[in-house]
Amino acid sequence: MDEVGLEPGLTLDPVGAEGWAEFRALAHRVLDEALDFTEKVRERPVWQPVPAESALRVAGELPQEGTPLEALCTEVTETILPYATGNVHPRFLGWVHGSGQPGNLLAEMLASAMNANCGGRDHGAIYVERQVLEWCRQLFGFPEGTSGLLVSGTSMGNLIGLAVARNEAVAGMRAAGVGAMRGRLTVYASSEVHDSVAKALELLGLGAEALRRVAVTDAFGMDVTALRERIREDRAAGLQPMCVVGCAGTVNTGAFDGLEELAAVCREEGLWFHVDGAFGGLCRMSEAKRGLVRGIELADSLAFDFHKWMHVQYDAGCVLVRRAGAQYAAFSMRPPYLAHASGGLGGGMEWPCDLGPELSRSFRALKVWFAFRENGVRKFGALIEQNCALAEYLGERVVRETRLELMTPVTLQIVCFRVKWEGASEAELDARNERLLIWLQESGVAAPSSTRIGGRFAIRVNVTNHRTRREDLDVVVGKVLELAGSF
Amino acid sequence: MDEVGLEPGLTLDPVGAEGWAEFRALAHRVLDEALDFTEKVRERPVWQPVPAESALRVAGELPQEGTPLEALCTEVTETILPYATGNVHPRFLGWVHGSGQPGNLLAEMLASAMNANCGGRDHGAIYVERQVLEWCRQLFGFPEGTSGLLVSGTSMGNLIGLAVARNEAVAGMRAAGVGAMRGRLTVYASSEVHDSVAKALELLGLGAEALRRVAVTDAFGMDVTALRERIREDRAAGLQPMCVVGCAGTVNTGAFDGLEELAAVCREEGLWFHVDGAFGGLCRMSEAKRGLVRGIELADSLAFDFHKWMHVQYDAGCVLVRRAGAQYAAFSMRPPYLAHASGGLGGGMEWPCDLGPELSRSFRALKVWFAFRENGVRKFGALIEQNCALAEYLGERVVRETRLELMTPVTLQIVCFRVKWEGASEAELDARNERLLIWLQESGVAAPSSTRIGGRFAIRVNVTNHRTRREDLDVVVGKVLELAGSF
Repeated sequence: MDEVGLEPGLTLDPVGAEGWAEFRALAHRVLDEALDFTEKVRERPVWQPVPAESALRVAGELPQEGTPLEALCTEVTETILPYATGNVHPRFLGWVHGSGQPGNLLAEMLASAMNANCGGRDHGAIYVERQVLEWCRQLFGFPEGTSGLLVSGTSMGNLIGLAVARNEAVAGMRAAGVGAMRGRLTVYASSEVHDSVAKALELLGLGAEALRRVAVTDAFGMDVTALRERIREDRAAGLQPMCVVGCAGTVNTGAFDGLEELAAVCREEGLWFHVDGAFGGLCRMSEAKRGLVRGIELADSLAFDFHKWMHVQYDAGCVLVRRAGAQYAAFSMRPPYLAHASGGLGGGMEWPCDLGPELSRSFRALKVWFAFRENGVRKFGALIEQNCALAEYLGERVVRETRLELMTPVTLQIVCFRVKWEGASEAELDARNERLLIWLQESGVAAPSSTRIGGRFAIRVNVTNHRTRREDLDVVVGKVLELAGSF
Repeated sequence: MDEVGLEPGLTLDPVGAEGWAEFRALAHRVLDEALDFTEKVRERPVWQPVPAESALRVAGELPQEGTPLEALCTEVTETILPYATGNVHPRFLGWVHGSGQPGNLLAEMLASAMNANCGGRDHGAIYVERQVLEWCRQLFGFPEGTSGLLVSGTSMGNLIGLAVARNEAVAGMRAAGVGAMRGRLTVYASSEVHDSVAKALELLGLGAEALRRVAVTDAFGMDVTALRERIREDRAAGLQPMCVVGCAGTVNTGAFDGLEELAAVCREEGLWFHVDGAFGGLCRMSEAKRGLVRGIELADSLAFDFHKWMHVQYDAGCVLVRRAGAQYAAFSMRPPYLAHASGGLGGGMEWPCDLGPELSRSFRALKVWFAFRENGVRKFGALIEQNCALAEYLGERVVRETRLELMTPVTLQIVCFRVKWEGASEAELDARNERLLIWLQESGVAAPSSTRIGGRFAIRVNVTNHRTRREDLDVVVGKVLELAGSF
């Protein structure tokens, strides 16, 4: 590669025009494999276990010498590629995963070549992230002056939102920490809240006990009367209520808290209002479903994912904070080696590292930018509606099958059910359904996940998949009934 | 794409064989652009500002409708690609960034197609991450039973290491938080420590005041006598020393703490020993340089980056924890929807989400795996030595130029210097050097960054770049002298 006049040197680049030509040819072959993998997804099992004899299972020696790239690519194709999570498959119906989108591959190639570090500085990638955040602000009806950050997912988004809430609640928190304050901070969420909220409170030094798990109504949304009561009790006990976390789409059943009502409670009580909208927040994209998240525009902070219902490649989530100053005050720190310059590469607008705990950050904004621009909001809205219609269809099929039991009403995209065997005890039902689910996954035909509803084991079908068709759900029901017959 | 018999449906995939063929052709064109971008890097300026009239600067309307992918790719090529951070360029000599490696593009294409979520479950990507962590364990001489996690970078790695340290120091921390304990925890690091440590302590609720910034010796390593003294004072004042953070390569000058000695202090005092090895930790890869990190194998936890001196594409860092049980105890939480199954997709080994705050995690392990396998440790070691030799060369050139002043001895890969103008006051020197640096960056010829040494503005050249040659450094010196003449 080196021009005439450059001393020869060691490099990680291909060497010379010939080296580059060889590398380029290999890159095109690998691209074709990546494309085949996506185009032919229906021909593969959803999932298969990594074989017991696979080299992948062997913890090998630290490689001292290199391996030719071509051999390495063959090894990946044979030993790694066939053992994907499965979420790109139309019958992956488990944990709330998106299915990815082919257009994102182009974004990721370009981002890989640019190799930007998006912690800060003044370069194109920072502007792309800004645009994405501005679109999100508009999508969720947040005011001008909103700040935000792209993150790996809602777990990180919840952590950042709650960190800002904590620091806003107590003056001097950054310097003195939690130990210096009197009283204890408390946070309120429904009993259905995702555990990332408790994990965030642990990390923030508030402790999991700071989380008050408020009872839910029959529809699995937070009981607001119980919430008010709990806040009152805590205040009476000398505690300091700090924040209410609203759920926009719970992970178990896809339930929504009444966000508008929670916002009103927060206003009255002077509490921070954080919304966990991991997948459900994007119901804002659908005219038919956006009523579910009415009030989300009133949140002080909001965390949600692009890699779920927008099918952006993993990982990609976001946190928005209504008052940019609050987020900046919680995270900005500029030692001399990160000093902000008046121009050049060290200049530019607010740096992302001023708004969260990470300094090194990949250019994930480009794939999100591609997703928004390539498809537009309306298409994502229609896909969400398509997924909900599929879940409804499956719910109806489950109800019609006498051997199956629907365990919660289908309100969105999640269907929890189980097989009933005559005369089996509840404990037996749990054990058999659990075994059946593993068989189903291991068959490669379909991959739902599981949860517990009222303490009972449930097969949990989650449809956040733009490739799923009715016929796929018919196949799932057929296979479940077939497996059930062998107990 | 749909097979015969499938109902038509909305999808994010190309439609039909023709749609896929078109998409494939476009993907190959985009790949060629990504490759050209890397192959021709020397022909471009290191960096250029995003033009004032660029569409990138406009916060546009949320896209409601989609844009054809081909038009989108053209837009990226024209408006985003030319405005990269510049760290892929041989004369990017600023913040400690790696330069990336072409082989990683192949890894990123395959990872994009697989679209794995590496929070947990049983699939190939999890095994790849395990292998990488095992190699790191061997590289750093950690014992069997070490756990670890790939993270975005050392900021996150420091956060996780210190979270484990905090939770090990105080029983019941996860439940009750920092507020429930008596006394206050304190952490010790040199005055040269990276600010991510203070940020981590803030986030953990310990407060930045918990950080004791211990004086350094002339070589900018921690003064161990001062450390012992400070611990003694704090204990006498009723505080609870918790952890010492050792620096393996400081960001300002590339200095190393005496890790072996710090480990001994920690053993005597019963303190957790965390090492921030962001870039310097990888000196373990070089026979010539590994003496600098003697004692790193004694750390209780260690954070470091792959995207710096291993040139893995952004972002990719790692944290290792000597006792897996401690990391697991700090982070594991398994609600019903993440229950560990005895088989199937929900089975497998320890899940990464048990070891850190993230649940959604990209398959960054594949690009790290590629880097190790394609190049091997020896090559990275040789590249580190090549970079240090280049820094030494520059240091000597600076000393020979009467108009330049070397501001610290060159001990590794960082060269801090400034231009001297006769008769100029210190304040004027600061202002002029700062202006000169911006001009240098804006010229597109080279991009060093800046820092302060003893309060004075310094131009900071950092050579963590496998493309840099001696001639590049000659060009930098020439341009600096030319610009200096115009003041």
